[in-house]
Amino acid sequence: MNLEGILHQLVEEKKFRKLRSILEEMNEVDIAEFLEEVERDKVVLVFRLLPKELSAEVFACLEVDMQEHIINSMSDYELQKIVEELYIDDAVDMLEELPATVVRRVLANAKPDTRALINQFLQYPDDSAGSIMTAEYIGLKKNMTVEQSFAYIRKHGVDKETIYTCFVIDEKRHLEGIVTVKDLLLNDYETKLEDIMDTNIIQAVTTDDQETVVESFNKYDLLSIPVVDHENRLVGIITVDDVVDVMEQEATEDMEKMAAMLPSEKPYLKMSVFELAKNRIPWLLILMFTSTISALILEYYGHITAMFPTLVTCVPMLTATGGNAGSQTSTTIIRAMSIGDVEISDIWKVFWKECRVSLAVGAILGIANYIRLIIMYPDEPMVCLVIGLSLIATVVMAKVLACVLPFIAKIFKLDPAMMAAPLISTIVDALSLVLYFFIAALLLPV
Amino acid sequence: MNLEGILHQLVEEKKFRKLRSILEEMNEVDIAEFLEEVERDKVVLVFRLLPKELSAEVFACLEVDMQEHIINSMSDYELQKIVEELYIDDAVDMLEELPATVVRRVLANAKPDTRALINQFLQYPDDSAGSIMTAEYIGLKKNMTVEQSFAYIRKHGVDKETIYTCFVIDEKRHLEGIVTVKDLLLNDYETKLEDIMDTNIIQAVTTDDQETVVESFNKYDLLSIPVVDHENRLVGIITVDDVVDVMEQEATEDMEKMAAMLPSEKPYLKMSVFELAKNRIPWLLILMFTSTISALILEYYGHITAMFPTLVTCVPMLTATGGNAGSQTSTTIIRAMSIGDVEISDIWKVFWKECRVSLAVGAILGIANYIRLIIMYPDEPMVCLVIGLSLIATVVMAKVLACVLPFIAKIFKLDPAMMAAPLISTIVDALSLVLYFFIAALLLPV
Repeated sequence: MNLEGILHQLVEEKKFRKLRSILEEMNEVDIAEFLEEVERDKVVLVFRLLPKELSAEVFACLEVDMQEHIINSMSDYELQKIVEELYIDDAVDMLEELPATVVRRVLANAKPDTRALINQFLQYPDDSAGSIMTAEYIGLKKNMTVEQSFAYIRKHGVDKETIYTCFVIDEKRHLEGIVTVKDLLLNDYETKLEDIMDTNIIQAVTTDDQETVVESFNKYDLLSIPVVDHENRLVGIITVDDVVDVMEQEATEDMEKMAAMLPSEKPYLKMSVFELAKNRIPWLLILMFTSTISALILEYYGHITAMFPTLVTCVPMLTATGGNAGSQTSTTIIRAMSIGDVEISDIWKVFWKECRVSLAVGAILGIANYIRLIIMYPDEPMVCLVIGLSLIATVVMAKVLACVLPFIAKIFKLDPAMMAAPLISTIVDALSLVLYFFIAALLLPV
Repeated sequence: MNLEGILHQLVEEKKFRKLRSILEEMNEVDIAEFLEEVERDKVVLVFRLLPKELSAEVFACLEVDMQEHIINSMSDYELQKIVEELYIDDAVDMLEELPATVVRRVLANAKPDTRALINQFLQYPDDSAGSIMTAEYIGLKKNMTVEQSFAYIRKHGVDKETIYTCFVIDEKRHLEGIVTVKDLLLNDYETKLEDIMDTNIIQAVTTDDQETVVESFNKYDLLSIPVVDHENRLVGIITVDDVVDVMEQEATEDMEKMAAMLPSEKPYLKMSVFELAKNRIPWLLILMFTSTISALILEYYGHITAMFPTLVTCVPMLTATGGNAGSQTSTTIIRAMSIGDVEISDIWKVFWKECRVSLAVGAILGIANYIRLIIMYPDEPMVCLVIGLSLIATVVMAKVLACVLPFIAKIFKLDPAMMAAPLISTIVDALSLVLYFFIAALLLPV
């Protein structure tokens, strides 16, 4: 039997002493996973077995509905202990999702200082540096020695989210420098912090977008970053584990936008059918009505298609290829923009590159398809030529359009991700039909 | 003038002493960025100004073509100094990209130990844990005290990639436990490591896929992970900064596959036109020829479209909507799979959810479009009904197919990302036409 099976059996058999001794040795993430599987009416029983500090760590890893369940089963005294043990960023994450009545009870049971801090943190806008930072950092003074710093860390470090990067601040909490524990370990006990601290500080401001914070972490390989307010006072830190979560979330959001969905707030399996449908319908409706333009174009050129029915049968191939060619380019450019490889100033370089790539790709596809068509329809050489040429024109048009639109979005401060495959396909569909019939009218006797 | 301008001016005016004093205070990433902008023939001149340790750090941040340029301009003695200062993972990353002649010169100038280590690391397969790990970690013994550990770290820590997580190993390098500097700081000097080390170790094996490593970091919020060989001997560590790079790279690769491209090895602006075209043509060709099936279907039902031309004009709208509906679902499922939210065992849950979502979405789109059509073509109520019903059927078919295909890929150990928008659109195009004409044949007098 695996460990999980053993744990469940111990719960069944009410062997709580044995259960506790195993849980105490486990990682908080694994305990949380186990708790999510325990029957609802026994969860609080098991949760109470955990030692105080571990219980707060486990609590922070639970899903919000489980947190709510546990809060509702706890006494005010137990609740207060948990709230005081939680890191501010975990507490704020939880409170943002809990129903208002539960939030009120949690805040009522927090100590005044904690309550004030939580309220301050709750006010930072979504997706800002302030909304992902935490308040538990080590603040030192520049006239402290290495020995004094170690004494301070020994005394206060146990409750801090990271002790490895310490921040040197003045009486008004202005950030003056950064000292790592590595610096402390590699210097003599008598050394003053002002002589070893790094004053070339990479920092974030509370109102910075979280994407900017992610870029700083990526660029400088940081473990944590200090966050200051607009008066340059240190108010919190962001640690790399939170940044990793933001990175995943931002990549998921980009993919959702690129597939014509509104961004989701929850993991897929936790979303209701209604929420999923609500996120998907708006763009589908817009794109559906926009693609009516293609119908109008086909109707307008009805006399040509009536004379050359082969032209109609190739419409899905033409629009699909145009859409795929465009989505290759738009995906590449949007991703390069979001990881900082491409800036607005690169527009001409990108444009020129895509012009050449699209000509090469278009030529190969056009020729390949022309050969296929001339074998299948040897009686209609001109129709085959029209289709081959249209394919080249469509690929070039699709790729050039797909590289320009994300830049235009960026210039107008819109999210380039909305310029992805679905929107570009719809525009490319219509334009490729116009090109198609233009070339047909030119080369065929109509 | 900004800092960069000042630096460039100092280079121009050959004020190297002043330049050095500024560079010494800067972050290695920023110095590397600055060097990339300096004229080629002056780069080595500026690079030689840097103090030894900083120069190795800057070197590791440079692009590979700049590294090659500097290596070619350096004496063997200088090269040896740099190679010995580099972390093994940075050295290996560089050597994997350099031309063979340059690699030989680098290895010839490494000390025997370093050379053996580099050769060992070069053998780990691409994208394995071994290929992203480094060898510079702190190894302690379990009978050491906290005080002895600190002495060891003070002596050996300066060259290690991280000192914050230390690894307790026996004489045969078997991993016995983990001790963090935080544990050391919060315990008495006399405490033995065996009493405080964590024996519940989260580790990776050299041959593990790097995606598995990323998942462990995400799940447990790690700063570093030990990597052991198949005899459970510690051979290296992976630090969070390298994992962050892997995460970005994996997300980019997924997006590229989802947009029907072969994954790229380099940033967009560094790719040649030929490389870009080469990555884009294969899937476009395959999809283009596959979409010929749609042409055959349209040809086969030519008699129906000849009688009801309005049916033809709605083909682009129908296939585009089907493609978009499918790509919404496939993107969602593929992403949920790659971040571990959805497993193979969830297939029925997902299937049932998508059935209901697709019915809701399809009904709304079908009705909305029916209303539009009946207003535009009041004389053809049955044709409008055919289109509306086909839209519902297409959306349901597209979404159900798009949720099943990634699971099938996963079951057959293929990458679910290849089942994304373009492939699904092509299949959906053909199937939606079949549904369309089936419904038309049922309801219209043909």
